[in-house]
This record gives sequence, C-alpha cells and structure tokens, in this order.
Amino acid sequence: MTPLLVADLIGVAVFAASGATAAVVKRLDLFGVVFVGFVAALGGGILRDLVIGVPPLAFADWRYAAVAVAVALATFWLHPQVNRLRRTVLVLDAAGLALFTVTGTAKAFAAGMPAFGACVLGMLTGIGGGLGRDLLTGEIPVVLRREIYAVAALLGAVLLVGLRWLHVTGPAALAGAAALIFVVRVVALQRRWSAPTPTAGLGRTRPASR
Amino acid sequence: MTPLLVADLIGVAVFAASGATAAVVKRLDLFGVVFVGFVAALGGGILRDLVIGVPPLAFADWRYAAVAVAVALATFWLHPQVNRLRRTVLVLDAAGLALFTVTGTAKAFAAGMPAFGACVLGMLTGIGGGLGRDLLTGEIPVVLRREIYAVAALLGAVLLVGLRWLHVTGPAALAGAAALIFVVRVVALQRRWSAPTPTAGLGRTRPASR
Amino acid sequence: MTPLLVADLIGVAVFAASGATAAVVKRLDLFGVVFVGFVAALGGGILRDLVIGVPPLAFADWRYAAVAVAVALATFWLHPQVNRLRRTVLVLDAAGLALFTVTGTAKAFAAGMPAFGACVLGMLTGIGGGLGRDLLTGEIPVVLRREIYAVAALLGAVLLVGLRWLHVTGPAALAGAAALIFVVRVVALQRRWSAPTPTAGLGRTRPASR
Repeated sequence: MTPLLVADLIGVAVFAASGATAAVVKRLDLFGVVFVGFVAALGGGILRDLVIGVPPLAFADWRYAAVAVAVALATFWLHPQVNRLRRTVLVLDAAGLALFTVTGTAKAFAAGMPAFGACVLGMLTGIGGGLGRDLLTGEIPVVLRREIYAVAALLGAVLLVGLRWLHVTGPAALAGAAALIFVVRVVALQRRWSAPTPTAGLGRTRPASR
Repeated sequence: MTPLLVADLIGVAVFAASGATAAVVKRLDLFGVVFVGFVAALGGGILRDLVIGVPPLAFADWRYAAVAVAVALATFWLHPQVNRLRRTVLVLDAAGLALFTVTGTAKAFAAGMPAFGACVLGMLTGIGGGLGRDLLTGEIPVVLRREIYAVAALLGAVLLVGLRWLHVTGPAALAGAAALIFVVRVVALQRRWSAPTPTAGLGRTRPASR
Repeated sequence: MTPLLVADLIGVAVFAASGATAAVVKRLDLFGVVFVGFVAALGGGILRDLVIGVPPLAFADWRYAAVAVAVALATFWLHPQVNRLRRTVLVLDAAGLALFTVTGTAKAFAAGMPAFGACVLGMLTGIGGGLGRDLLTGEIPVVLRREIYAVAALLGAVLLVGLRWLHVTGPAALAGAAALIFVVRVVALQRRWSAPTPTAGLGRTRPASR
C-alpha cells in the first residue's frame, strides 16, 4: 500500500461516514445507509472516471468499496458515537475534500484534459460524493447553499495547475495543493466564513415571501 | 428473438409500468409519464453501459425504448386498471429485478470487471431505474428506505459469481441466480420482511422529533 | 469562431441564466448559483458526450464553461433585471432548446447511433440541463409537468432524421429542424399549450386527495 492509497482510503472512510450519518438522520434502512455511504465516498470518483473514460475505481478495486461499506456499517450501529465526533469528522472531511480534489485534478490532467477542465473535474471529484448524498436523501446539496467548501477545492485545483505551469509537479505539488484546500476549509469552518448569498450580495431582492 | 431478449423486454415493460404509475400519481403530464417510465425501465442499463464503456442499449436497440414508451403510454390511459393489478405488478417487478441484476452482473463480468465490481454493478442495474424514477418524482428512493429489495438483488449477483468460481456458467447459472432473487423478493413481500432501520437496530437514537 | 459555435454559446448563455435564476430564487450562495448555472448550461451536453463516448466539451473547451460561469455571475448580481427580461429569456430559452437538440441529434448520428437513439439523445441534450437544474434545486423537473417543451425538441429531432432519409443534410437541414423546434415552442408559450395530464386525459382518476 502506497502512502497515496492510504490517504485515498482515509478520504473514502470519512466521506462514507458522512453519507451514512445523513442516511441515519433520514431513517433509511440498513441497505440505504450503506448505499448512501457508498455514493458519498465513491460518487465523485465514479463521475471523474466516467468523464475521463476509464473504468471507475469503485468497481475495479475492491479495497475502495470495502472501506466504504465497512465504515457505513459501523456508522449504522455506532452513529451516536459518530455524532459525538462531529468536530473530528468535519476536520477529516476537509482532509477528504483536499485529497479527492487533488488526485482528481491530477488524474484529469494525466488523461489529457486541459487545465480548465482538470480544475473543474478535480473540484467535482471532491464535491461529487456530497452532491450524490444530498440528492439521495432529498436535500438541496449543502455545498450549494453556504460555507466555503467547493471554493476551497477550486483554489487547490488552480494552485496545482499553476505549479504545473512553473514545472513543479510530483508529490510536493500534490501536498501543497492539498494543504491549501485543507487549511482554507478548516479556517472557514472556525471563522464561519460563508460565500455571499443573493440577499447579502444585492440588498434589493424581492421579499422572502416570494 | 431469443428467450433472453424476450425476458429482458418483459423486465423493461414492468419497470416502465412502475415508473409511469409513479408519474401519474404525481400528476405529471403525458411527456413526464413517458419519460419517467423510460428512465425507470432503462436507467439501470444506461448506468451499467456507461460504467463498462459500451453504447447504452436504450439508444442502440430501438426495441427496448419502444417497449418502454408503449407501456408508459398504456399506463397513462389505463392506470386505474394498472393499479388494480398492483399485486401482479409487484410480482412482475420482482421478475424484472431478478433479470436485470443477473444480466447486468453477467455483462459486467464479460467486460472484464472483477467479481466484486460485477456484483455491485449488477445490483445497480437492477435498482438503478427505480432510483431514477424516485429522484425524478421528488421522493427519497424507496429502495433505500424499507423492504428487502436491493439485498435480494445482491444475493443473486453473489450466487452468480460463486457459481462461476465453481465453473458453473451459462443459462443454468443465470436462471439459478435469477430464481434466487425472485424467490427472496416475493417471500419478503409476502412476509413483509424489512431491512433493519437505525431505530430498530439501535434502540438508543435520539427522539424522532430530531 | 464559426456561426455554429456562436449559436452554441448563445444557447449556453441562456441556459446558464435560467439555471442561475432558479438558484437565486432558492437563495443558494454564490457558488451554488454558478454551479447550477453551469449544470443547466452544460449538463445536457455532458450527458450526450458520456453516452456517445467522447470527452465532454464542457471540460475540453474552456469557452463553454467560461460563458456559463460569466453569465451565472452576472445573473447573481443583476437578477432583478434578468427577471424583468423574463419574456426575452423564455424566447432565448426556446432558441437554446432548438440549438442543443439539433446539434445533439447530429452529433449522436455522427457517432454512429441509430436514428431512434439519435432522436432521444438529441432531445436529452436539449432538456438535460433543465433536468439537472431542477433536481439540484429540489424541484420535480418542470419539463415533466406541463407545457410543450420536450415534445417540441423531439419533433425537431425527428424532422432532422426524416430529412436525412431524404438525403437533405448540412446547414439547411439543421436550420430547418431548429426552426421547427423554436416555432413550436414559442407558439406553445403564446397559446399556453400544455401536454395532457392524467386527470384531463382520463376523467376517471381517483380524487385529488389520493
């Protein structure tokens, strides 16, 4: 197991826990909890692999699915404890976002995608699982509503592309971009930074009853 | 027309009826009823074909789409009669689930996917149409909430893979796996078996008002 | 820039405005508005490209994404003005539907898809972005509920295929099919044509309280 694989599987585990917890809150059954955990952990990567035209890792490498299913099962039985770890889960989620975005961007590049597309697809790899989780549980995706989340991912993807233009590649570039995402996300959580909303940004929208 | 194609088209017809009925209940218009019927009947197979990288059958073979559209149109005009056949539809739906899962697993295998991935993708082929139907009609997918449905599909997919390890392949293996799915699903319907939910499985969750 | 590209980018701009407006109405944040605009503008084409097995244009050609993002940003800050242009936006949306459907059908054909599949996929290219927009904002897709929209697209796709059978291809055929879609859609808007709904079509459904 390479360090990159270990890091990747940590991301899978964290996202599986987030998906399974959302499913528990919605009172889904055991299968539903496992399935939403699977989609949250692996949906972003499946989308990435479909776009770049390779067999999705979620079906091609059993370790990814095994970690996702095991964590979702554990969350099903242990979710009150998972809830008590909410703060830890948020930090781990920031790590998962950082990792998935960076590896997604790098894989898109390696598949011959231009810089712009690689950044967007890398970000989609990071946020795609959470989008799937929220759509399956009947919520408007939280990533679209508040907080600095996708924007942190995009910043890291852009940094990775920028470093590449400066001929800085390899593990150092990946680590630097992942660190940027992680730090921006964690600081945004602590300081409760949010992206502007139409009301705040405008001050001249119609009344809320609209 | 081979027996497999006939069986496949029966599955398409049953799932189209289930999708169209869900759309009628939501008061969608004629196009909406046909479209949801199309997605319910063919969405699982489209997902499977995108993952294994072949042109989706729904667009490549007109007979699949023709059956789905014809049944959805019939359901639009005849839906009170379809509702009266609710019991029959549930049994036919179990047959469709069995068939789609088994052919999906076999096709994933034939495309070179490993055993684990083939089982998951086979199950997704069986439940994917229903997932699409529920997302389009604004529901949390019923397959995630209650009843033994996806689990029956998974059991059959695993049996098919197990028989393959024992060098049992061909129509007999397909029929055996499909029979297992069908029987488990029908018995689960009759005995009202459900997968455990977080409340039942834990007995120490927070109150429902949460 | 070829005329076709200009026309394509006009379609992207109009659909991005429609997606961003829907996101503003739902009080999504700045990222959410841009993301829903992106999906509304480019989701249909991404689906088409995944099905026919080519790299999605949304990631491969930066001009598409740039137009979508710029228009979504403009809508975020200027949306009351966009709302006042509602009538204009509806007409431009009809133009976008016409264009995306026709180019989608033609690309599906060029990729070797049979006539039936090309029509369905062309229509999906035209309506796919709106489907994605509505799913992300928690709505049952409007295209499934009322008005002549997808049916207009389908008529144009069928005309394009029919002209091909008569050996009429090239810009004239594309323009004729696009004109048909545009005219049917605009006339349907003006005369408030709707597809039949189960109630109207049957007159013998159960009461609405069902």
